[in-house]
Amino acid sequence: MPFRTRLTERLGIAHPILLAPMAFVAGGRLAAAVSAAGGLGLIGGGYGEAAWLEREFDAAEGARVGCGFITWSLARQPQLLARVLARKPAAVMLSFGDPRPFAADIRKAGAALICQVQTRGQALEAIEAGADIVIAQGAEAGGHGAARATLPFVPAVIDLARERAPGVAVVAAGGIADGRGLAASLALGADGVLMGTRFFASEESRGDPRAKAMIVAASGEETVRTSTVDVVRALDWPEMFTARVMRNDFVDAWHGAEPRLRAALESEMRRYQTAIEKADFSIAAVFAGEAIGLIERVLPAREIVVRTIAEAEAALARAAPR
Amino acid sequence: MPFRTRLTERLGIAHPILLAPMAFVAGGRLAAAVSAAGGLGLIGGGYGEAAWLEREFDAAEGARVGCGFITWSLARQPQLLARVLARKPAAVMLSFGDPRPFAADIRKAGAALICQVQTRGQALEAIEAGADIVIAQGAEAGGHGAARATLPFVPAVIDLARERAPGVAVVAAGGIADGRGLAASLALGADGVLMGTRFFASEESRGDPRAKAMIVAASGEETVRTSTVDVVRALDWPEMFTARVMRNDFVDAWHGAEPRLRAALESEMRRYQTAIEKADFSIAAVFAGEAIGLIERVLPAREIVVRTIAEAEAALARAAPR
Repeated sequence: MPFRTRLTERLGIAHPILLAPMAFVAGGRLAAAVSAAGGLGLIGGGYGEAAWLEREFDAAEGARVGCGFITWSLARQPQLLARVLARKPAAVMLSFGDPRPFAADIRKAGAALICQVQTRGQALEAIEAGADIVIAQGAEAGGHGAARATLPFVPAVIDLARERAPGVAVVAAGGIADGRGLAASLALGADGVLMGTRFFASEESRGDPRAKAMIVAASGEETVRTSTVDVVRALDWPEMFTARVMRNDFVDAWHGAEPRLRAALESEMRRYQTAIEKADFSIAAVFAGEAIGLIERVLPAREIVVRTIAEAEAALARAAPR
Repeated sequence: MPFRTRLTERLGIAHPILLAPMAFVAGGRLAAAVSAAGGLGLIGGGYGEAAWLEREFDAAEGARVGCGFITWSLARQPQLLARVLARKPAAVMLSFGDPRPFAADIRKAGAALICQVQTRGQALEAIEAGADIVIAQGAEAGGHGAARATLPFVPAVIDLARERAPGVAVVAAGGIADGRGLAASLALGADGVLMGTRFFASEESRGDPRAKAMIVAASGEETVRTSTVDVVRALDWPEMFTARVMRNDFVDAWHGAEPRLRAALESEMRRYQTAIEKADFSIAAVFAGEAIGLIERVLPAREIVVRTIAEAEAALARAAPR
């Protein structure tokens, strides 16, 4: 346990590494594997399919895991929270929306409240909600996010937290896929990292094997932040949030041409749905971040955690002043 | 001299800190102050005004400094390079274009060749050109840049350099304004940092005092990457490069409405030019990066360097594994 931080203390974990609750990808098996390796696994509650959640909590087989929600979607079916809290999660993570209506129930259930934020204003809101852990997410992250970049955003959130709520743990997310990213985050003053894309390309993730192979093969230039994949799925995300996905034929055709996509929506929705069913990733999106450029192999989740810690130790030893 | 890296060795400097050659802002006085503090100052050659360059080299009063060019602009008036090389600069930095036509002359003159890159492909080109130093610039940087974020881009360039040209120094740029940013960059494996916005808000910079005050007052959300400021100045930047500037009335009015701006160009150009002359920053752009959120005071350049080094030492000591 080379790194003890507010995060490891608060969650009672060995290593300051969280699994991002990626919708459809971070299932119970992956979450359990990350927790078993000394981090904390978060099941992806996503848009809130009750059956999926129940199945994945079952798949975690009683492991100590948490769960993450898309807050604006949870607000439309708040009864899901009680179902998840009944599973006694170690933590509940809320992203993309106002956490305050859910904060009291989460803390009353004994779960740590994790709030992911993309702006300074959201960080203030999270602190006001009583968050135990604030995740400062940069735009290089895979999936949904906003505009700030991890490297300058994380210290800004740290400064805010130290001033307003010194005990709150601040975690870096976005663009982190190895021990160098963990070392850099700790050097910024963060209490740990949240990794998504790196764990997408793990053996235990529910991601399609062809999507994992694409992540392994690609360089970091091959992603883009876009609203096209929400438009074509008829998901009404708040305007400030876009999704980072791997470039493919669909994104190349429609990114920047969203009004035309809306005009062609009916047929494009059918085409997109078929592509999802066939796992045709020339059309269906692979949600992944810029860190794809740092990922060279699909690995077991345990090995990802072990390597990340060892690399971070080596990186910080190398960088130490003389 | 707590940090010895390929960068300090190659340039013969005490601290791994470079001044970004900000057009119109990084003049000779600022460059000399950064060099005197132990880093290396680079005069902003910008679009290549010979008289400005001569005056600023004079203002450096014989200090050991370098100079940076916008490569595609230099290619239109290549004779400027000889004038600068006659000043015996310690280094010449090329950004935004193919460095290969200029590399031989720069190295023959005994100057270090610094290439700033925004993609993996450009990094390969820089290595092929024989760059001594490759700067991996993230999109959070102020002024011109592209799409990759610093945190995941820097290690990707490092991996490439270690494989193809192990002696090349790799420097992080974009989003770095204090010692935490330097510490994080060193933890990623970088050999140092290039800082622009932080030195814009220095006493010696040629930036307007009102612009410096805006940088000090703003939070990191108040910048945007846009092409509007190039459109209105009739600068034909290659499409992949946009400029990060502080949001103001002009940018809020035209960002995302570039075709309409082009249609109204004649009157908007006049209005913009007048605003520059009056230092009216509700219209004229302040070129600055996301790191504005970390800058709280205008400081002498020497103090910026001294603080950055001391903070980085403390940050790395704090982050060290137990």
